[in-house]
Amino acid sequence: MSGNSIGKLFVLTSFGESHGPAIGGIVDGCPPGLPLCEADLQRDLDRRRPGTSRHTTQRREPDRVRILSGVFEGHTTGTPIGLLIENEDQRSKDYSEIAERFRPGHADYTYTMKYGRRDPRGGGRSSARETAIRVAAGAIAKKYLFVQHGIEVRGYLSQLGPIRPATVDWDAIETNPFFCPDPARVAELEAFMDALRKDGDSIGAEVTVVATGVPPGLGEPVFDRLDADIAHALMGINAVKGVEIGAGFAVVTQRGSEHRDPLTPAGFVSNNAGGVLGGISTGQDLVARLALKPTSSIRLPGRTIDTTGAATEIVTKGRHDPCVGIRATPIAEAMVALVLIDHLLRHRGQNAGVRPTTPRVPAHA
Amino acid sequence: MSGNSIGKLFVLTSFGESHGPAIGGIVDGCPPGLPLCEADLQRDLDRRRPGTSRHTTQRREPDRVRILSGVFEGHTTGTPIGLLIENEDQRSKDYSEIAERFRPGHADYTYTMKYGRRDPRGGGRSSARETAIRVAAGAIAKKYLFVQHGIEVRGYLSQLGPIRPATVDWDAIETNPFFCPDPARVAELEAFMDALRKDGDSIGAEVTVVATGVPPGLGEPVFDRLDADIAHALMGINAVKGVEIGAGFAVVTQRGSEHRDPLTPAGFVSNNAGGVLGGISTGQDLVARLALKPTSSIRLPGRTIDTTGAATEIVTKGRHDPCVGIRATPIAEAMVALVLIDHLLRHRGQNAGVRPTTPRVPAHA
Amino acid sequence: MSGNSIGKLFVLTSFGESHGPAIGGIVDGCPPGLPLCEADLQRDLDRRRPGTSRHTTQRREPDRVRILSGVFEGHTTGTPIGLLIENEDQRSKDYSEIAERFRPGHADYTYTMKYGRRDPRGGGRSSARETAIRVAAGAIAKKYLFVQHGIEVRGYLSQLGPIRPATVDWDAIETNPFFCPDPARVAELEAFMDALRKDGDSIGAEVTVVATGVPPGLGEPVFDRLDADIAHALMGINAVKGVEIGAGFAVVTQRGSEHRDPLTPAGFVSNNAGGVLGGISTGQDLVARLALKPTSSIRLPGRTIDTTGAATEIVTKGRHDPCVGIRATPIAEAMVALVLIDHLLRHRGQNAGVRPTTPRVPAHA
Amino acid sequence: MSGNSIGKLFVLTSFGESHGPAIGGIVDGCPPGLPLCEADLQRDLDRRRPGTSRHTTQRREPDRVRILSGVFEGHTTGTPIGLLIENEDQRSKDYSEIAERFRPGHADYTYTMKYGRRDPRGGGRSSARETAIRVAAGAIAKKYLFVQHGIEVRGYLSQLGPIRPATVDWDAIETNPFFCPDPARVAELEAFMDALRKDGDSIGAEVTVVATGVPPGLGEPVFDRLDADIAHALMGINAVKGVEIGAGFAVVTQRGSEHRDPLTPAGFVSNNAGGVLGGISTGQDLVARLALKPTSSIRLPGRTIDTTGAATEIVTKGRHDPCVGIRATPIAEAMVALVLIDHLLRHRGQNAGVRPTTPRVPAHA
Repeated sequence: MSGNSIGKLFVLTSFGESHGPAIGGIVDGCPPGLPLCEADLQRDLDRRRPGTSRHTTQRREPDRVRILSGVFEGHTTGTPIGLLIENEDQRSKDYSEIAERFRPGHADYTYTMKYGRRDPRGGGRSSARETAIRVAAGAIAKKYLFVQHGIEVRGYLSQLGPIRPATVDWDAIETNPFFCPDPARVAELEAFMDALRKDGDSIGAEVTVVATGVPPGLGEPVFDRLDADIAHALMGINAVKGVEIGAGFAVVTQRGSEHRDPLTPAGFVSNNAGGVLGGISTGQDLVARLALKPTSSIRLPGRTIDTTGAATEIVTKGRHDPCVGIRATPIAEAMVALVLIDHLLRHRGQNAGVRPTTPRVPAHA
Repeated sequence: MSGNSIGKLFVLTSFGESHGPAIGGIVDGCPPGLPLCEADLQRDLDRRRPGTSRHTTQRREPDRVRILSGVFEGHTTGTPIGLLIENEDQRSKDYSEIAERFRPGHADYTYTMKYGRRDPRGGGRSSARETAIRVAAGAIAKKYLFVQHGIEVRGYLSQLGPIRPATVDWDAIETNPFFCPDPARVAELEAFMDALRKDGDSIGAEVTVVATGVPPGLGEPVFDRLDADIAHALMGINAVKGVEIGAGFAVVTQRGSEHRDPLTPAGFVSNNAGGVLGGISTGQDLVARLALKPTSSIRLPGRTIDTTGAATEIVTKGRHDPCVGIRATPIAEAMVALVLIDHLLRHRGQNAGVRPTTPRVPAHA
Repeated sequence: MSGNSIGKLFVLTSFGESHGPAIGGIVDGCPPGLPLCEADLQRDLDRRRPGTSRHTTQRREPDRVRILSGVFEGHTTGTPIGLLIENEDQRSKDYSEIAERFRPGHADYTYTMKYGRRDPRGGGRSSARETAIRVAAGAIAKKYLFVQHGIEVRGYLSQLGPIRPATVDWDAIETNPFFCPDPARVAELEAFMDALRKDGDSIGAEVTVVATGVPPGLGEPVFDRLDADIAHALMGINAVKGVEIGAGFAVVTQRGSEHRDPLTPAGFVSNNAGGVLGGISTGQDLVARLALKPTSSIRLPGRTIDTTGAATEIVTKGRHDPCVGIRATPIAEAMVALVLIDHLLRHRGQNAGVRPTTPRVPAHA
Repeated sequence: MSGNSIGKLFVLTSFGESHGPAIGGIVDGCPPGLPLCEADLQRDLDRRRPGTSRHTTQRREPDRVRILSGVFEGHTTGTPIGLLIENEDQRSKDYSEIAERFRPGHADYTYTMKYGRRDPRGGGRSSARETAIRVAAGAIAKKYLFVQHGIEVRGYLSQLGPIRPATVDWDAIETNPFFCPDPARVAELEAFMDALRKDGDSIGAEVTVVATGVPPGLGEPVFDRLDADIAHALMGINAVKGVEIGAGFAVVTQRGSEHRDPLTPAGFVSNNAGGVLGGISTGQDLVARLALKPTSSIRLPGRTIDTTGAATEIVTKGRHDPCVGIRATPIAEAMVALVLIDHLLRHRGQNAGVRPTTPRVPAHA
């Protein structure tokens, strides 16, 4: 399939550059009858939006989404849903120096080598700007998953640089601009970020996404396993360099007797599996983790080459996220929701008549 | 698309259960004119094969692959290549007790919840047996990548439990049954494994795959990024719980000034990117890492339920890998090769005429 | 894949209802470097546009297309091209009666049975309005095919009711509102249409599309043959009930000695094949024909049921095409162009290095 | 997707050349729980088999199919079904002269131009031999459609050269080697064929396929319409040059008042639509027609070129079908069944919860 589409039954296709007239997308395959309106999407877009605190980029994009089709009298029709967000606050002049140089750590060089050309303004198609459409589409998926199946998809910041939340209080997440689930850590995060901004540097982060209420049976082995598709979706977020499910890389030193999650009639006793076995959901909480690299757009000069191949230096001015991880939580939630709804429909397509005689094992014993 | 196919231009579709008559697959989209014979595939199959040391499972499968189509007078024709491996050493009687129970940590429960039924013999379709076909198909990909483009894909064991190779000597990898690149560690690994086998337990592992000679420009943003497709392919290997590219999860604590790889006319100065930026290959070595969980088929009893949902216990007898990571290296290489060739053809399809004026940056300064 | 996408490397995905705010689409996979601007698309949109003569529907849609992404400094970038056409002249009040009834011969009943609901205004998604986006995307394909490969795709009206052009003068096609290639027939067509309009009835038509300059080798047997994909694309145009390649249904009574096209060093001697053999292009002119049914939206009353299932009658008022075939020529050209460019890129992806030693046989001896 | 796969949820991927060791395929996405065994497939394979009368080719292939996976204890498991048919009666020596020449009307020239090479024995991949796998896969689809949904797919010869059955007696179809539904015509067909064989020539044919019991709602507009996918599947059968749905090309001269099928509470009054409106099934009988060209493998000499491009002549010896239409009926049924089951699963995936309030209109008033 085309590289700008994701999903097989519930498909998002997107377009749009950072400094073009607009970004947009098409959601194809949404079941009919779902109550839907622009406010449903705007909520998650506002969570992702730049300029909501001094710790994120200062580009002021209202990100107002329009639904152009696929909804009639307040409900989805089953026909494709067109989404559009006009770009309003692009400042092309900030990038005048960059047209002739390749910013190290960015996609400038790779886009040029791939296409022979690139739109240098704001990173063009490689900019994280287009993730706004993923969040809008993910909001549709989230609503369907919750309304129809009681599935919730929520994420939080599980680490920023050296700082790690000690507890996870789901109610705390929306009370600070970091999506940090541990209120006790917020002051520390703010101080760390202020120091970072002074240094003109950036830092990495880790985000955790948990989906609850996932029924067992989702996933299409052997290649379109649920965990494989989640890895694909999360690694496809700008700046992601690692993805884990359940115990993740900790499994390397685990013994089988520790790792495997016992099943009892009362429920699973642990969740090292992260909710997936053999590529299919178990009914346990789906737990995924992603590692985001520090942005390379920093004020400290970096060595690079120009478009002729000659050595040069670059200093990124303009408005940037010193920690892209801070805004990644809603994007990661959206991607997990898109994968889940796609798998739900695919499973329903092939196995609609299946009624296992074995009772479902509860998520938590 | 169907869950048993991977790739978009170079597509592998596979079939086969652990204890069925045969496993097989179809490789569709291989360019014509590649010299190919069964021996090309057998080499990698033999590397993967069970029973090659006392440290891996004792099931003796010769894994002789037949090429049934797509090759004429020693060269690929461009038509689909049918692959077949007859199953020879299945011992169904070892699984008689398991038909009524769900082995914890395996896919027995999830397959039952998905399909309402399962073939319990040897894990049926969920068994790692089918990875033999992935390795056979990967061998075709590897040959094309190397012969046509000088791209090499090689992997090694980068950690087993607490034991970590201190050096990477590429020539050492094939000299021991672990694919360990540090000869000094082999005795330690053997002792560890012997102790493990005595305990009746299992351990996890980490495998690293490196692809050299990858040209810049491969990858189809924004969703079919090269790293996203690699994550999908590697997470889709049985027992994998984590995937990393380049610096991986270490990026969480890295600063931008440390992480970003400077470009110079002599080459890239470092490789935290792991060979991918913006989802497109840079020309640097492609470096990916996967974490494999310890197998749940161990002699120590485990709590579970039976097919009626009642509590029970299970002890796995029969022949099993105490560390599936030991055989994962050729499978991981195969998956990376399949992704690379697919992206090579996709890139060539859309951008065949592109000639960037910027010279290519060497992989290593 | 999703039902609203067509193509595998060069993919069009579309959205939009007849009376929604806008229709639009995304073209993903267009090679970079193609000079492109909105005027290139507008030309073909104007050829398709309603209200250009008294013989077509009187809805006045300017169909101004905007390019929202994928083009920078006048050339395609290789990133997805977003297209948008705002709907301007929808008159919802004309359809008030139809909301409770199913128009026979239209998709009202089938959309309701599929989705449980429908947007009744102007036929919603089932309206031919969305073909404007196909024409816009087809214009991009046409330009690339011509500029890069000298391939031209042109169509004409080959029959309307009982009236059949006796000659094909390519220069005459754009001189009349019928796309009729025989100037001598135009008066007859006009008289026929005027009588039809008086009767309040409609008529069917046949359109022929010819692509010249197609290189041999396009098509992906055995399922994605070039002719099979063309049949898929043309049968997918609203109102189409039949598709032919080359001699078409005439082959039923042909003998093999008549039908097969001899090859000579000077070229093919005939073209019963229509340019395709074994699902792959031969280099002959690609000739396809489609049969369009008479529209069911006529002033004559028709028997039908209402949404409760009770018998009722319906009379369609409002603005309609008495012969949809009249506007189908640019749509059919667009669809053939979309298939050709997709196959060109797919063929190039797999077989880029192939150099047959056999010289190419000219199209016409 | 790859050219050797068809379908999106229920996918057939095939491989195999006329003179290779075997042909085979993989059916992926078959719902679990369907009773299935090799005899279910063999029945339709025997209907297709060459050598069953003097009127078809004299190559004697038993076409014994083996099911290698995806079935356990007599029922499908939901995992991919591997199919294999060993080639037994290939006589390569019959083709020795053809290696250096291109048979006019065959795919020899086009395969060479596409891939730069070909397997000349028996037409290689372009041979109709591989249709045996389509028939085997179609038998699985047919069984599911019938057992689960009461849908029947049956075809017959509707014309051979100038001879047209006057009536359709479904019970007569299997009583003669032509699949002719009019017993009164059989003697005429036999005489015609005997004369044709004497002449060393061939003739075209038309086959009609009817599917009854199709529920309304199948089809994925706007591109994957049910009729578009049927056109794709049928045009993809070797030798097909035209496809029609319902009234087909007769619509060109029909008026809207004649063509549209009235709906009444007792049912549809006519079936010019052929069972599809707006790309979605109506519940009427699905009626499709295909035109098969006369085979170009005849004893009469034909002008062509050799592989160097020089003029030459060719006479086809060996064993051939003087009318490929005679064996096409089971193949066409199989293809329609494959499309129907794929659409059934796709529709169920997206719209499983939909309950239209409008009652279903019976197929025949």
